[in-house]
Amino acid sequence: MQLPSSLLENAVAQFAKLPGIGKKTALRLVLHLLKQEVNDVQHFGETIARMRRDIKFCQRCHNISDGDICSICANSMRNQKLICVVENIRDVIAIESTQQFNGAYHVLGGIISPLDGIGPDQLSIESLVSRIEKEETEELVFALNPNIQGDTTIYYIQKKLAHLPCRVTTIARGIAFGGELEYADEMTLARSIANRLPVQQYVK
Amino acid sequence: MQLPSSLLENAVAQFAKLPGIGKKTALRLVLHLLKQEVNDVQHFGETIARMRRDIKFCQRCHNISDGDICSICANSMRNQKLICVVENIRDVIAIESTQQFNGAYHVLGGIISPLDGIGPDQLSIESLVSRIEKEETEELVFALNPNIQGDTTIYYIQKKLAHLPCRVTTIARGIAFGGELEYADEMTLARSIANRLPVQQYVK
Repeated sequence: MQLPSSLLENAVAQFAKLPGIGKKTALRLVLHLLKQEVNDVQHFGETIARMRRDIKFCQRCHNISDGDICSICANSMRNQKLICVVENIRDVIAIESTQQFNGAYHVLGGIISPLDGIGPDQLSIESLVSRIEKEETEELVFALNPNIQGDTTIYYIQKKLAHLPCRVTTIARGIAFGGELEYADEMTLARSIANRLPVQQYVK
Repeated sequence: MQLPSSLLENAVAQFAKLPGIGKKTALRLVLHLLKQEVNDVQHFGETIARMRRDIKFCQRCHNISDGDICSICANSMRNQKLICVVENIRDVIAIESTQQFNGAYHVLGGIISPLDGIGPDQLSIESLVSRIEKEETEELVFALNPNIQGDTTIYYIQKKLAHLPCRVTTIARGIAFGGELEYADEMTLARSIANRLPVQQYVK
């Protein structure tokens, strides 16, 4: 695909670097921007650049924040002794949108995955341990994706916390609401049988 | 979806304005940019803004251009007496990538579509007519999408050119290469029977 202008070419190349955006889609986006007002496109570019330059990460939970401490950590109405451990910021947003969790978070920034070259040192595990020691956290809920890497990470962190009185739990795993038993994989089905719940607790 | 930072929120809102990008995809793109270097994201924003600010349109054919005249119009190796009329810049790029056309272009900037409020005055039809008069164009090839709006546009322009000796043609329409007869719509099949070609011409 040969483009008639180097300015266009550069803009398309920039968009095509984004995940899930190929060269054709990038061209469609750039041609759309070409039809917008100069000021609007200027504003687009500045907003993106400013976001990257000025955004901060909460010093306590590593969530995205406008200030040094994020709005969740600064909220005294939330139970700060209950910490939910998640892989990344998207998981925080997903859990927040359920409006069912009233504790604080700790964003690991990834999960332990030796094949991808990610070890415990690249994650915010040390700061989690010292945070639990200092804040006398009562409960830690792991909300990691249910796979080998997630389980490895839970196991590793749990061992690090063995000397602390903090209770450690994980979100329930089983057949998803609206899912069908016959299409569930064996691992999920086996686990959900092993971890069966009293009906009273289920309908609570 | 509530986001933990207004900087993030603004950046997501900007991306979500682009066609085909919803709020979830926008968030994925923004979080990807957050992982890049500050300078790279700065460069991203500047490239997009500069593209919109500095890009020009060829004064002759309305194609995108770095200068006043685009590289196709400035190319004396191409047949400048043969003009291909297209709806937009994407069509120029598509035809150029076939490497089968050696003439010049004229970009209309849309097609006549009363339902969308687009009349002949919003398109570069006047400049096409005066260009053909001035340049003594020998042939005009319409390469518009085969639908009612495209046919209306061809009909309108053709009438405007009735007083000129310029030959007017349109790209062939029929069963696409690799297409299957039984799945072709009736209109396409009927037209391709009506406009059948001598086999000698077909295999040429």
